[in-house]
Amino acid sequence: MRATVMYGAGDVRIENVADARLIEATDAIVRVSLACICGSDLWPYNLMDESEKSRLMGHEAIGIVETVGADVRTVKIGDVVVMPFAYSDGTCDFCQEGLHTSCVHGGFFGTPDVAGAQAEAVRIPLADGTLFVLSVSKDDSLMPSLLTLSDVMGTGHHAALTARVSPGKRVAVVGDGAVGLCGVIAARRLGAEQIIILGRHADRIALAKEFGATDIVSERGEAAVERVKEMTQGFGVHSVLECVGTDQAIHTAIAIARPGGAVGRVGVPHYETIPAKQGFFDNITVSGGPAPVRAYIEELLPDIVEGRIQPGRVFDRVMGLDEVPDGYRAMNERESIKVMIKF
Amino acid sequence: MRATVMYGAGDVRIENVADARLIEATDAIVRVSLACICGSDLWPYNLMDESEKSRLMGHEAIGIVETVGADVRTVKIGDVVVMPFAYSDGTCDFCQEGLHTSCVHGGFFGTPDVAGAQAEAVRIPLADGTLFVLSVSKDDSLMPSLLTLSDVMGTGHHAALTARVSPGKRVAVVGDGAVGLCGVIAARRLGAEQIIILGRHADRIALAKEFGATDIVSERGEAAVERVKEMTQGFGVHSVLECVGTDQAIHTAIAIARPGGAVGRVGVPHYETIPAKQGFFDNITVSGGPAPVRAYIEELLPDIVEGRIQPGRVFDRVMGLDEVPDGYRAMNERESIKVMIKF
Repeated sequence: MRATVMYGAGDVRIENVADARLIEATDAIVRVSLACICGSDLWPYNLMDESEKSRLMGHEAIGIVETVGADVRTVKIGDVVVMPFAYSDGTCDFCQEGLHTSCVHGGFFGTPDVAGAQAEAVRIPLADGTLFVLSVSKDDSLMPSLLTLSDVMGTGHHAALTARVSPGKRVAVVGDGAVGLCGVIAARRLGAEQIIILGRHADRIALAKEFGATDIVSERGEAAVERVKEMTQGFGVHSVLECVGTDQAIHTAIAIARPGGAVGRVGVPHYETIPAKQGFFDNITVSGGPAPVRAYIEELLPDIVEGRIQPGRVFDRVMGLDEVPDGYRAMNERESIKVMIKF
Repeated sequence: MRATVMYGAGDVRIENVADARLIEATDAIVRVSLACICGSDLWPYNLMDESEKSRLMGHEAIGIVETVGADVRTVKIGDVVVMPFAYSDGTCDFCQEGLHTSCVHGGFFGTPDVAGAQAEAVRIPLADGTLFVLSVSKDDSLMPSLLTLSDVMGTGHHAALTARVSPGKRVAVVGDGAVGLCGVIAARRLGAEQIIILGRHADRIALAKEFGATDIVSERGEAAVERVKEMTQGFGVHSVLECVGTDQAIHTAIAIARPGGAVGRVGVPHYETIPAKQGFFDNITVSGGPAPVRAYIEELLPDIVEGRIQPGRVFDRVMGLDEVPDGYRAMNERESIKVMIKF
């Protein structure tokens, strides 16, 4: 089958690889209908360790179940399914608590160990726990939005939940990538009164406004902190969604939180430490992590199906698998917000 | 009047200073009946900056209102009052949210700017907002426990709340000082099922057990992390109360938290940074800060008055004001858990 292989920073190729096949009896093979490129894929695209030989990329997809292992009970051949970016058994203590990303038998797609979904097919470990069966046809117009349940919409929701967004609150979203934009949707959905987005790309900001952002801050660093303070009676916001993962982003996030506020960080941290003192004296909570998107699908799905939210609008480019290397380039150069791959 | 003056690391003296007097019309002067020495007082006792000339120490007291300013409305001369370690107006947005330590007009006692309570009398700014009037007589046997509402019991409670202790949860308390011991009381009071205390002083551990600790870990660092994991099916605890404030303590706290767990830190941080990555991948929340003890008095008071909790047992030494320098020494050398000063 054809799949996306990253060989090193900047080196993404579409190649023939061994077909995805059942390994465990709890596996399923999913024929991919739609996949996408994630902002987090740009980290290895820029920084992939030279010691790593290659990686089969991708962790977001909708597809059709093609084969199931002997112990797969609920997922059936022919089901239209969305895959979360992490696989999970759905039964361990952590899954039952809704923290599927800490499943004791779980793991992550598109990593050095587990093949990814930017491919014609993908092996899904623990299929019954991992896959969410959609009651839609493969050609449904809602597909782009449903695809975001794999990662970015669930991740934006996680940022909002862990930042404790609730009705009437002032919220800031650090980052105008697809996750930040979904964070805007999530914050509005949870009733935020003010939603300040920190970003500087005109196309993304325009979409953020349509999604519900009330204020824009295009400054960075200290200047951004000052602007947010000006917009919030000098105090900062109740909730900060940190959707970038850089040192500057987390510093800014903590600095713009109001005393007693919370930062929900979902940007994969490319920083080693968090400042300890400012957050302490202001009683600021720092929370977040990899989003247990599997836990959120059921909650978010009706809002997509009934048209209340349209996270699929973050896809501003659609391409075939062969064009994926150019999709990486386009996202990396901020030409595209998020690329959808159509099979 | 006589008061406790710190001139530098290790240099605490009892001296005659200018009498506490009204400055603002919202002030009250409280004649101190009981005060105490705090673990946090040991930080300047060990590390006071040489640029600082002197500091009038103390931030915990019960006393009797002696004078009130013209604008004091609710507090009356003769009232028996407990003072929280921070003063606050009781009316600003943060006070109304229960975060009195971030009061826009507030501040802290026993700091370079505001005289402290290890003295015959203390000036209380914003008396109506700050003081809590007790309906007990000055000689009540509950006084030691009521005195802990100034700081350590409220601080232990804050650690437990911000670590999200709730019924049935596994909890660890890092530190066996007075705050850690009150943290044990708070965790039990909130329904924790397992309470592991990390500490190594026999007298404190004995008291922790009486307060409800179920397990003891006397190791430190990596060995402590391993022991806690062994005691918790390999996963760690849901809630960690960080009651020390050192770099090792916060590292240990994050390392022993279970995925999805929370650290409530109340030890004044003498570390600059918090590790960013481990907490992220395990979705661990880091919360806490200076405890808004003023907000907690009403909730904790009935449990003291009705004898359900006895935080006053953390006082293992009672002395007069003149002996206070030796009290600092005794606490610093871990001869005493917490010193009560009787006037």
